[in-house]
Amino acid sequence: MTPPSALIGIGIDVGGTNTKIAVANSEGKILRELEIPTEPSLGPARFVRRVVSVIHLWESELDLEHSPVGLGLAGDVDSKKGTMRAAPSLPGWSGFNFRRALSSALKRPVVIDNDANMAAWGGYVVELGRRPSTVVAVTLGTGVGGGLIINGKLYRGATGSAGEIGHSRVELRGLACRCGARGCLEAYAGAYGLSRMAKALLAGKPRKPSKLRRLSPAELTPRVLAEAAEAGDAVAREVWRRAAAALAAGLAGIVLILNPEMVLILGGVSRAGKLLLDPLSEAFRREPFRTPFRAVSLRAARNPNLGCVGAALLALEESAPARN
Amino acid sequence: MTPPSALIGIGIDVGGTNTKIAVANSEGKILRELEIPTEPSLGPARFVRRVVSVIHLWESELDLEHSPVGLGLAGDVDSKKGTMRAAPSLPGWSGFNFRRALSSALKRPVVIDNDANMAAWGGYVVELGRRPSTVVAVTLGTGVGGGLIINGKLYRGATGSAGEIGHSRVELRGLACRCGARGCLEAYAGAYGLSRMAKALLAGKPRKPSKLRRLSPAELTPRVLAEAAEAGDAVAREVWRRAAAALAAGLAGIVLILNPEMVLILGGVSRAGKLLLDPLSEAFRREPFRTPFRAVSLRAARNPNLGCVGAALLALEESAPARN
Repeated sequence: MTPPSALIGIGIDVGGTNTKIAVANSEGKILRELEIPTEPSLGPARFVRRVVSVIHLWESELDLEHSPVGLGLAGDVDSKKGTMRAAPSLPGWSGFNFRRALSSALKRPVVIDNDANMAAWGGYVVELGRRPSTVVAVTLGTGVGGGLIINGKLYRGATGSAGEIGHSRVELRGLACRCGARGCLEAYAGAYGLSRMAKALLAGKPRKPSKLRRLSPAELTPRVLAEAAEAGDAVAREVWRRAAAALAAGLAGIVLILNPEMVLILGGVSRAGKLLLDPLSEAFRREPFRTPFRAVSLRAARNPNLGCVGAALLALEESAPARN
Repeated sequence: MTPPSALIGIGIDVGGTNTKIAVANSEGKILRELEIPTEPSLGPARFVRRVVSVIHLWESELDLEHSPVGLGLAGDVDSKKGTMRAAPSLPGWSGFNFRRALSSALKRPVVIDNDANMAAWGGYVVELGRRPSTVVAVTLGTGVGGGLIINGKLYRGATGSAGEIGHSRVELRGLACRCGARGCLEAYAGAYGLSRMAKALLAGKPRKPSKLRRLSPAELTPRVLAEAAEAGDAVAREVWRRAAAALAAGLAGIVLILNPEMVLILGGVSRAGKLLLDPLSEAFRREPFRTPFRAVSLRAARNPNLGCVGAALLALEESAPARN
């Protein structure tokens, strides 16, 4: 038996390549899920129609009539208006009002936010059971994203841009970031940063022996680099050492500013457990200002669906007054 | 006519050298003030007795019987317990319970916090009239401190350590900070960092002509460096250029994480207006991720008493339920 539809949420996690759609209950348990190609070139209106079709399809099996919808988008999202402000990985989608399109098609509350905020909320509810009061969630994927939970709520800031941890700076005149700035954490600890560092090390002198030399840049994924490091490859080890040092510096700064109870690491790169999290814990233990680092726990979430589950859960959370 | 004593607060701002004590109304207007040497070597109990004497003296003139007391201390403060955890600039004072000592002597509510949090609250009420919802306050003094206002309240974090902006990292393997870490913002933008950078530049080659060469390290104060830069001294200009670049990188990171409505700069070094704030505004304008930087205002507070006034105001704010 499924719970009443007001206790079930529908979450959509839109990336540049693929979109995950899921139906989840208020504990984050997935009842249905589907992955579809995003196909950004077809435009946002067409995308919304496809998502609505999936939801209508599920409605024929499940009682979803009152289920709120959460939509997480990769980009700069105006969560108040429900629009996309800027969308580097979804070209042509900026300016579109997703809330208006979805809520007029589906006749129910729709919550729009950026994908990292959705994943942060998903991690907070599913992985942490809402226990800590303040959590910094960091998403290590192609780029580095983040979301903040402050006093048990998703914290959005003045324009919904809060939590852009990947673009906090760890080095003056540092590596160029794809955002246009220099020294951003993402340029060191995101998947594209790892691949680029590997290429630079392989091209550098003295020439180190490495099996990675045979691979193309696109093949230098976090998974390949992690396997190579575990097999003892010197270049791969150096890449992870640099990524961990940058991540430690960036997250130490955030711990000193926000003094959270938990730093939760999400996303594909976080699966490189020992290569990233062990040096990070070790760096936190060596921090001279002890109090905030003694108080913070470090944890990696392994659930790969927190983006869409979090979107469903945030929709449930923020449409709750309408339920009562 | 003075307002009833429950609408007047007493604030104490304790630095390593001097302590300011002030009586202020709920708008932050100072009714009485006094500066005394802190004399840390005499110990915290003796210090508390001296402060209590000053308050008793003022009570003979003003109706202060119900006025709450706020005490701001330079160091790592446990605001819940009212104790000092670690006190690099007040040697021998760690572990002392200031709240217990003051409230048992004065029989009224006492709020204890670190000095940067008190100054942040003072700036928020006096300079900003509590208008913005989220404010990052940065204190540029000997070191670099900070305090956060989130949703109109002082945000303390898990252990009261939030807002330690001065130790967020701006450079991997960067300048050594007096905290023991490397690359902290404070090592570039605090007064001791400025003086040290000036010394290093004066000692470096090629030898640049500079009138600063005649000065001792202690004489290389922010004021002297600012005057020299305005007179065209190349070394002083380079010091300010580096400090501004580090401050821009550190504050850009915080703006990207917290997405505040306002960054408020406090403290002595902030009076180096054009040398620091103009390059900072310019750097914010050049930031590639526009939304949070368009939304944030940058402002310098010139009131030199925000530490003690803020302590008085925070005591009024947080003892308010007892007044009702």
